[in-house]
Amino acid sequence: MIMQPALFITLEGVDGAGKSTLMDFIAMLFANAGREVVKTREPGGTQTGEQIRAMLLDRDNINLRHNTELLLLFAARMQHIEEVIKPALALGKVVLCDRFTDASYAYQGGGRGLAPTRVQTLETWVQQGLQPDLTLLFDLEVKVALQRTGAGLFSEVEADRFEQEKIDFFERIRACYLERAENEPERFRMIDATQAVADVQQNVQKIVRDYLC
Amino acid sequence: MIMQPALFITLEGVDGAGKSTLMDFIAMLFANAGREVVKTREPGGTQTGEQIRAMLLDRDNINLRHNTELLLLFAARMQHIEEVIKPALALGKVVLCDRFTDASYAYQGGGRGLAPTRVQTLETWVQQGLQPDLTLLFDLEVKVALQRTGAGLFSEVEADRFEQEKIDFFERIRACYLERAENEPERFRMIDATQAVADVQQNVQKIVRDYLC
Repeated sequence: MIMQPALFITLEGVDGAGKSTLMDFIAMLFANAGREVVKTREPGGTQTGEQIRAMLLDRDNINLRHNTELLLLFAARMQHIEEVIKPALALGKVVLCDRFTDASYAYQGGGRGLAPTRVQTLETWVQQGLQPDLTLLFDLEVKVALQRTGAGLFSEVEADRFEQEKIDFFERIRACYLERAENEPERFRMIDATQAVADVQQNVQKIVRDYLC
Repeated sequence: MIMQPALFITLEGVDGAGKSTLMDFIAMLFANAGREVVKTREPGGTQTGEQIRAMLLDRDNINLRHNTELLLLFAARMQHIEEVIKPALALGKVVLCDRFTDASYAYQGGGRGLAPTRVQTLETWVQQGLQPDLTLLFDLEVKVALQRTGAGLFSEVEADRFEQEKIDFFERIRACYLERAENEPERFRMIDATQAVADVQQNVQKIVRDYLC
């Protein structure tokens, strides 16, 4: 039996793009092709990572600085790579990861305004050259994403300063994702996530087909 | 009334040097001189910092990588500086901190063997030029320190590989502390912590006297 090459696939995009459901769909495609699949997510995926995730999502931690957030994310990533991703790849498995370092560039760099060089330094430290083989970027307009997540149910006229800030924040994230996809066309595949679920799945299936053999 | 200059004083050394008791003593000296004192510690000192401290001390987190540890320590430090240290210094207070960045160089650099340049990069990021005005290094022989903390109650003959590793680990930490003290004689004051408590206190009082005026 010939061992199939390990695959590291990341799913990126803002909330509301339907990543979770699509992750299950992609896992099924690989499982049907006889591959062993590991589904994981960031931040999280390990005991330490989930503890960090809880800290990052804890609404009581309102004073969390952007730099603290970035350091915590990469601490979680370090553990995730060493405990989960590398061991699974070493066994020839398919690793599907909901968000990875592109999200740090997009959210902490683009969204929060931290210098991309900081993300880059930490990326080099913790990844030691590890990069996804394929990154699926689920792209959709910010207003649609906010409506889908129930985070932006307001009319344009009523949009107050806070809501406008939120839109601007996600616009910067989206712009950063798109820029990264443009700069690394070999690794990125962009999928229009405004389409109906069946169409998105069809797109995904077409892309993944090349990796099923 | 003339506002007295803010002071940032750190206490360093391996466990068993008696830092906690001496911190109270130093706080008393400054309080008696009419200064407002903030006592704090690392990792910790903030809500996020204490959560991180708990993760670092959690014996279940046996898989914690050295790099993860370093990133977590600096995440905690970032919050500590912004939420506690800088605001207190801005009000002209005396900040006494049990361990700071010298400990990262000593433990994660010297002890764990991480490249000091990593510590340096993170130091520059989170401290933005902030440095202690005075660092008290409580130095003592590793074997005495281990005996005091009850961590090394064994005869030299019985010392097994694990115990020898522990001694080596703390020897590297001590060596790193001593090297840093030698390189920054303006900031560091070394105190022989093998002395009787009363003598150590007398030494400390002599040093601190210059900062009481």
